[in-house]
Amino acid sequence: MKYDVLVVGAGFAGLVVAERLATRFNLRSLVVEKRQHLGGNAYDRYDQHGVLIHPYGPHYFRTNSKRIVDYLNQFTEWKPVAYEIKSYTEDRYWSFPINLNTFEEMLGRPSSTEEMEAWLAANRQEYDNPQNSEEVILNQVGTELYERFFKGYTLKQWKRHPKELDASVCGRIPIRTNRDNRYLEASFQALPKAGYSRLFENLFAACGNQSKALLNTDYREVMDSIDYDYLVYTGPIDAFFNHCHGPLPYRSLRFEYENFDANALKERESISGKTGFWQPTMQVNYPNEGEFTRIVEIKHATGQACTNSTIVREYPDDYEPGKEPYYPIPAPDSALRYLKYKELADHTPNTSFIGRLATYRYYNMDQVIGMALNEAEKIAAKLK
Amino acid sequence: MKYDVLVVGAGFAGLVVAERLATRFNLRSLVVEKRQHLGGNAYDRYDQHGVLIHPYGPHYFRTNSKRIVDYLNQFTEWKPVAYEIKSYTEDRYWSFPINLNTFEEMLGRPSSTEEMEAWLAANRQEYDNPQNSEEVILNQVGTELYERFFKGYTLKQWKRHPKELDASVCGRIPIRTNRDNRYLEASFQALPKAGYSRLFENLFAACGNQSKALLNTDYREVMDSIDYDYLVYTGPIDAFFNHCHGPLPYRSLRFEYENFDANALKERESISGKTGFWQPTMQVNYPNEGEFTRIVEIKHATGQACTNSTIVREYPDDYEPGKEPYYPIPAPDSALRYLKYKELADHTPNTSFIGRLATYRYYNMDQVIGMALNEAEKIAAKLK
Repeated sequence: MKYDVLVVGAGFAGLVVAERLATRFNLRSLVVEKRQHLGGNAYDRYDQHGVLIHPYGPHYFRTNSKRIVDYLNQFTEWKPVAYEIKSYTEDRYWSFPINLNTFEEMLGRPSSTEEMEAWLAANRQEYDNPQNSEEVILNQVGTELYERFFKGYTLKQWKRHPKELDASVCGRIPIRTNRDNRYLEASFQALPKAGYSRLFENLFAACGNQSKALLNTDYREVMDSIDYDYLVYTGPIDAFFNHCHGPLPYRSLRFEYENFDANALKERESISGKTGFWQPTMQVNYPNEGEFTRIVEIKHATGQACTNSTIVREYPDDYEPGKEPYYPIPAPDSALRYLKYKELADHTPNTSFIGRLATYRYYNMDQVIGMALNEAEKIAAKLK
Repeated sequence: MKYDVLVVGAGFAGLVVAERLATRFNLRSLVVEKRQHLGGNAYDRYDQHGVLIHPYGPHYFRTNSKRIVDYLNQFTEWKPVAYEIKSYTEDRYWSFPINLNTFEEMLGRPSSTEEMEAWLAANRQEYDNPQNSEEVILNQVGTELYERFFKGYTLKQWKRHPKELDASVCGRIPIRTNRDNRYLEASFQALPKAGYSRLFENLFAACGNQSKALLNTDYREVMDSIDYDYLVYTGPIDAFFNHCHGPLPYRSLRFEYENFDANALKERESISGKTGFWQPTMQVNYPNEGEFTRIVEIKHATGQACTNSTIVREYPDDYEPGKEPYYPIPAPDSALRYLKYKELADHTPNTSFIGRLATYRYYNMDQVIGMALNEAEKIAAKLK
């Protein structure tokens, strides 16, 4: 069998490249995937109670790019979602990300944007150029809010002090002085109407017979026996180079599911505020209490018309071989090590490294898709 | 790449063989599948309204074999189901398969087993040895019930007169003089608790790295470039031999889906008798009116806790290349043609033909699984 391109990994990065190569450039690819399904971590499925879940952690699609939406429109319809989250600590739910509502909850009385701005100005610790995740939050809101909402969460999630983590980690959470409760700020916020897995099936089907997928397969088992001109690698970059510069650090996750039927949910109505839900919003962060960082009830976002609901408690976990390497660790020491691998990658001919794991960076889905769209063009230019 | 066995088709037949070869005999296989997913026609999925559907027609799992249940228990839990159907004609729903309740509905008053047996004895047309589907039903119930429930349905479904079809076609429907409304008689009747697709994923995952699946792939494209000792073919047998004895006849199907939300279903409650359902039973046959043969509302069987529901109208369709060959046609002429292909198959070395399409026979799922379990043993014996 002769392929133009061997693609390692059938997540967004790999499948988008395969689709573009097939339909736009008439190039043949083989996508090799170690799991038993397409979709990488964005894969969704229904649990045994018939509730749609995101088994590799919640995936909240959002983008500011019309190009990305136009591209995905070929493979899915959308269900617009206003992603909302809260934070639970000190025995109560707080509006989150921090905004004027949170501030009023803290004061226990009505307030105003002006009062909140004055409070922040009086409480923030100014850093001209915040160097890490502690400084970036202290610079915005000061110690009290930092300790209530950020410090414990970050320690649980990363098992590192916020001081040791890049400013971008906590810096990606907005702080607002208006009443905007939305979690995310992108102009397009929606989920695939029939789920991510259907989107992936449609995307793959669009390749026609120009792309095949080999599941349940470690690429190292097969790559020597496959005839291809170009390699697209979307797995962990350190594994590709046999960890020759030492393993890159990752954080893993452990998920605990719990399903509640309609009767059990009735007793939660005073808390969730809605029939058929366990908690008030799609995601609730637990920055301080408990070993889990958050509880996700994705039904808030999927809008599934079921009377039962499934919640997922998410426990950060030390990564070790055999576990899923969910998060690259955004810190100076790991970035330095990554650069050594990047140097090797840059000198590997006829090979592209794309996606979250191959570039060791916490990208959102739309960023990965954009990267894959661009890379497909470059690859096609090289191969023509 | 070297495999012990090349398996064509990732339905029950193909995947069960792969699993047995892998876990019991440590033999390596490559499963080649032309679709974008595992599971063949038993594949299920959730539609864009979050309702679990059987997109290739309903699959009502049942068996009398403890061996089959024990085997599948490794890959799924079960939801017991009493499959119930009705027949709709002359503007009303009838109990079906025919039983004492049907008889009372016909009389419009209470009756008894004795009266029904006497009626059948007086009305049936006796055939010592029924030769076709018309004779087998006339022999049991006579013209009135034959014409009400069987003749039109069979004509729609098969586009052949019941006289031209094997006795087994209509003979598989029970006729009862008690009040047993169950559609099927097997001792074990249940659906996989998390759905068929999850069962297939688990079955495939059980192969570990002894089996790989190549999706979106016509086996003819790849078989020459793959090194294997033995072939298991589960596709249409006439296609395997390039239709050298002419094409075998098949019936195809076209499905029309309609989803109803909780409000729309409220208006159907007087008909369905239950909140959240469109019709009174999982399946309703339309033997006479309409172009569809049946409407399936699989939520009756899956028991999904959703407030909405999806029904599927099933239209029989002439088969032609590009459509799905759902049903081999159980008739003397097609059986004769099949035998010519079977002769070829019997003389094809190192190749097994299993499953509904490769043996040109309307098998139930448990029969296919049993066939695959047996065949795996034989193959392993040949290869050792």
